[in-house]
Amino acid sequence: MSTRRVPVVERIMKANDVQAMENRETFDAHGIHVVNIMASPGAGKTSLILETVRRLKDQVRMAAIEGDLASTVDTDKVRAGGIPAVQINTGGGCHLDANQVGQSLDDLPLDEIDLMFIENVGNMVCPVGFYLGEHTRVAISSVPEGDDKPHKYPKIYANVDVLVINKIDLLPYLAFDMEAFQTLVRGLNPEIQIFPVSCTTGEGFDAWTRWLLAQAETS
Amino acid sequence: MSTRRVPVVERIMKANDVQAMENRETFDAHGIHVVNIMASPGAGKTSLILETVRRLKDQVRMAAIEGDLASTVDTDKVRAGGIPAVQINTGGGCHLDANQVGQSLDDLPLDEIDLMFIENVGNMVCPVGFYLGEHTRVAISSVPEGDDKPHKYPKIYANVDVLVINKIDLLPYLAFDMEAFQTLVRGLNPEIQIFPVSCTTGEGFDAWTRWLLAQAETS
Repeated sequence: MSTRRVPVVERIMKANDVQAMENRETFDAHGIHVVNIMASPGAGKTSLILETVRRLKDQVRMAAIEGDLASTVDTDKVRAGGIPAVQINTGGGCHLDANQVGQSLDDLPLDEIDLMFIENVGNMVCPVGFYLGEHTRVAISSVPEGDDKPHKYPKIYANVDVLVINKIDLLPYLAFDMEAFQTLVRGLNPEIQIFPVSCTTGEGFDAWTRWLLAQAETS
Repeated sequence: MSTRRVPVVERIMKANDVQAMENRETFDAHGIHVVNIMASPGAGKTSLILETVRRLKDQVRMAAIEGDLASTVDTDKVRAGGIPAVQINTGGGCHLDANQVGQSLDDLPLDEIDLMFIENVGNMVCPVGFYLGEHTRVAISSVPEGDDKPHKYPKIYANVDVLVINKIDLLPYLAFDMEAFQTLVRGLNPEIQIFPVSCTTGEGFDAWTRWLLAQAETS
């Protein structure tokens, strides 16, 4: 089965990369810095976007593309947070692809955006294999997921620019070895930026938003 | 892209179902009740297996097949818990398929097993689409993932026999509406069995293991 499948997947991914480069040209033409956020369901992708928007909305013009199998729950939340957002419903699809992102750009005011978040489908496996045209790739791991995840899902940790470690307010209630976890992650990706945060208490957000603003200003 | 892809995926899934039926015949010939456990990374699949094994090991002979992208972390834990286990490493693969499970059966003492757990790859999206030959399908949602997940990942809730709600010991620290969550899930799947548990404190385990033993005894 896998031998039949690999060439097909390779063709699909090549077509995806062509569209992703077109997306990137569109982003650059409009001066938009794009951040692709990937994580398990419930790790805090929407919460990270909402708290970041709350803190930066007077400094930078933001927007979001929200990916989910179904519903507009996240788009509704992000719009209520005060920025333009579009929903991509993938049906059964386990990741966003460049074509879906390209089509959704028609529904956003591209000339009025400096920083765009793409919230991928909640999945630690598939999204990282599909380039969408983004400038920055962010993974979120949350403390309740446990500190052994880099052993089991190495590809995502190895292929992102940033790791946000969310829900650090729950550290007192869980057996999570922060130092061992970060050592594992840096073993897979020595250049990675790591920001431990709590979207609930706001702890750690200053370092994250400072870094993010600096990225947005360079593109 | 999606129009090219659907027929290929359908052929792959049909081939998978043929192998899954063969697996099922093997399980039934050996009197093994097989439970396919699906959840996000870190929801507690291995912890559920380990605590179940600890409680039932004097009553029923168990084994496990452990699916992960990489590493033998979970297999090592389950073997240390006292039952035979085999690891399937999928490489980049986002779910187990029936062929992988069929091949792994050569490495298990099938005549000495009454109840077998298949721990799928941590992923709320893809595993539920691939039948492995199991008798019972279990999804785990954990409290820190949030109570809105049935809106966003309806397919898994609609297509399992059982939902285990894990990490209920964290309820005091999180905004999770247990009643609203269960109402959403039952809206997608009126027949579903729901067991709120904590693998840390053991709360709720008696109901889960009682139900599981009853299932195993009927097959």
